[in-house]
Amino acid sequence: MQVLVTGGAGFLGRRLAARLLERGFLAGADGRQQPIERLVLLDVVAADGFADPRVQVIAGDITDPAVLAQAIGAETMAIFHLAAIVSGQAEADFDLGMRINLDGPRRLLDRCRAVGHRPRVVFTSSVAVYGGDLPAEVQDDTAVRPQSSYGAQKAIGELLLTDYSRKGFVDGRVLRLPTISVRPGRPNKAASSFASGIIREPLNGEAAVCPVPPATRLWLLSPRKAIEALIAGHDLSAEQLGDSRTINLPGVSVSAADMVAALARVAGEAAARVRWEEDAAITRIVGSWPGAWNTSRAEALGLSGDQDFDAIVRAYVEDDLGA
Amino acid sequence: MQVLVTGGAGFLGRRLAARLLERGFLAGADGRQQPIERLVLLDVVAADGFADPRVQVIAGDITDPAVLAQAIGAETMAIFHLAAIVSGQAEADFDLGMRINLDGPRRLLDRCRAVGHRPRVVFTSSVAVYGGDLPAEVQDDTAVRPQSSYGAQKAIGELLLTDYSRKGFVDGRVLRLPTISVRPGRPNKAASSFASGIIREPLNGEAAVCPVPPATRLWLLSPRKAIEALIAGHDLSAEQLGDSRTINLPGVSVSAADMVAALARVAGEAAARVRWEEDAAITRIVGSWPGAWNTSRAEALGLSGDQDFDAIVRAYVEDDLGA
Repeated sequence: MQVLVTGGAGFLGRRLAARLLERGFLAGADGRQQPIERLVLLDVVAADGFADPRVQVIAGDITDPAVLAQAIGAETMAIFHLAAIVSGQAEADFDLGMRINLDGPRRLLDRCRAVGHRPRVVFTSSVAVYGGDLPAEVQDDTAVRPQSSYGAQKAIGELLLTDYSRKGFVDGRVLRLPTISVRPGRPNKAASSFASGIIREPLNGEAAVCPVPPATRLWLLSPRKAIEALIAGHDLSAEQLGDSRTINLPGVSVSAADMVAALARVAGEAAARVRWEEDAAITRIVGSWPGAWNTSRAEALGLSGDQDFDAIVRAYVEDDLGA
Repeated sequence: MQVLVTGGAGFLGRRLAARLLERGFLAGADGRQQPIERLVLLDVVAADGFADPRVQVIAGDITDPAVLAQAIGAETMAIFHLAAIVSGQAEADFDLGMRINLDGPRRLLDRCRAVGHRPRVVFTSSVAVYGGDLPAEVQDDTAVRPQSSYGAQKAIGELLLTDYSRKGFVDGRVLRLPTISVRPGRPNKAASSFASGIIREPLNGEAAVCPVPPATRLWLLSPRKAIEALIAGHDLSAEQLGDSRTINLPGVSVSAADMVAALARVAGEAAARVRWEEDAAITRIVGSWPGAWNTSRAEALGLSGDQDFDAIVRAYVEDDLGA
């Protein structure tokens, strides 16, 4: 089978690609494992560094029909749609967010519909679809009420994927990801960038600023477990999804203060490199997200998160610091 | 002030226009009543028959930027967006529904944003945004889960309106309308068309078919009360709306069997003209809608529905049969 990863040059996209190449197969439409013969990595920049002959790299705009026509053909049986403008940037550049986060998935789904072979599409959504006056633990039937353009665009993408699935144009599934922590590399323009930075920078000997109050609760998932969930979510059958194509993925609910305390437990002195300095814009966006949601559905489907935040910090040390 | 009604040639649009002309004013941005100096009626066909000099009729496609530029200018302070492809037709013609029900409101909102004067926009949504496994009475925080393309498109329109409002591009409010009954005129392509037909046709001496099982519950509002709610919803201040721009309007919860029983009470023998003949496609769509929702928020804001379904039948007789 042919597999497409959009956002394939991004951090999660590259890691997913590496795992798919290592694993070598995905569930086909009939549920049986099928070898991955080609893995297409689409992004606005070329996903370089993959030597595997199965990899095909496409650099192009996801809203360009010619690019989508090149990326999705009759052999494309699985699509992981990760391409997105992150929350802080979508808030700052409304038009860019609408184009990539709304027109992007819509045109991708339209391309699938035009090809007519009903591929599986894994759409990544986010805690950011929730907001407003939330219960301590968000339930499956809690209404989404995004408080950012990114959240609104993701919620729209969810509705599109669900309706295109109902119409039989694709076999879609929406995985709502907790905030991913700890991301390697440099800070990005996501409002939640600090949720990685306050662990990563101190572990790399650098200072970090936490821009939200210590009591702010976050809902977190390690990259390792996120990749596992994306693949497991793909491999679920349409029957297992039943009448809802949206799954809230398991996470760990911790406060910003708890995160720094975990860092101190795992790495001692490093935690002293975190400085608390509130940023109103980031606090507004991140504070609108749920600190936890009910994950009984995900767990019943065999999807799991991390054990606790200490485990997340240790996973970063193992996977990214090579310790 | 200048007022725009999209779908201005439709049944609700025409009735709203007549009521606005009769009333002569709407709340301005400062909350004070302002005279309506011009009423623009935009629809794909010309809204003929209005002799009032305040009326300007535009026939054009709502997704055409040139048409929107003509319809919305710096003087446009109030917009009632009623234009839509109805549920049955949006299900049959996916592309048409997406174009009018999704691109339509998006381009309208983009035109408002480009003009930059933050008009009030009243967006009509629907019971059809709900679906799936619903509680007997839907709550404000019950998740939307549309089971039709029309419902998905309306839910997307709600998200757009809310985010464009949050960004300060418009001062929007979403009114979720119960199924409107009794509509005058001929049947349309809405899945709920029968909810008017089984009352209207018998009262006009004609036979009617009820395509859903007698126990199917509907959530209904008379045209008279719907027009009142649209105007009252417009006149609410942004402060009154608080942190949610969506209002579930009050309705009357009745079964199809109850509706025919009410017809028998009001008009005796006419009820015998209803034949029961189930249509699977209509039953699937209408059966996915809630039979009632919690309207405490709407009521606290001063919005009211009909007393009972007998009153709805009598309102039709008074308003449309001239009895």
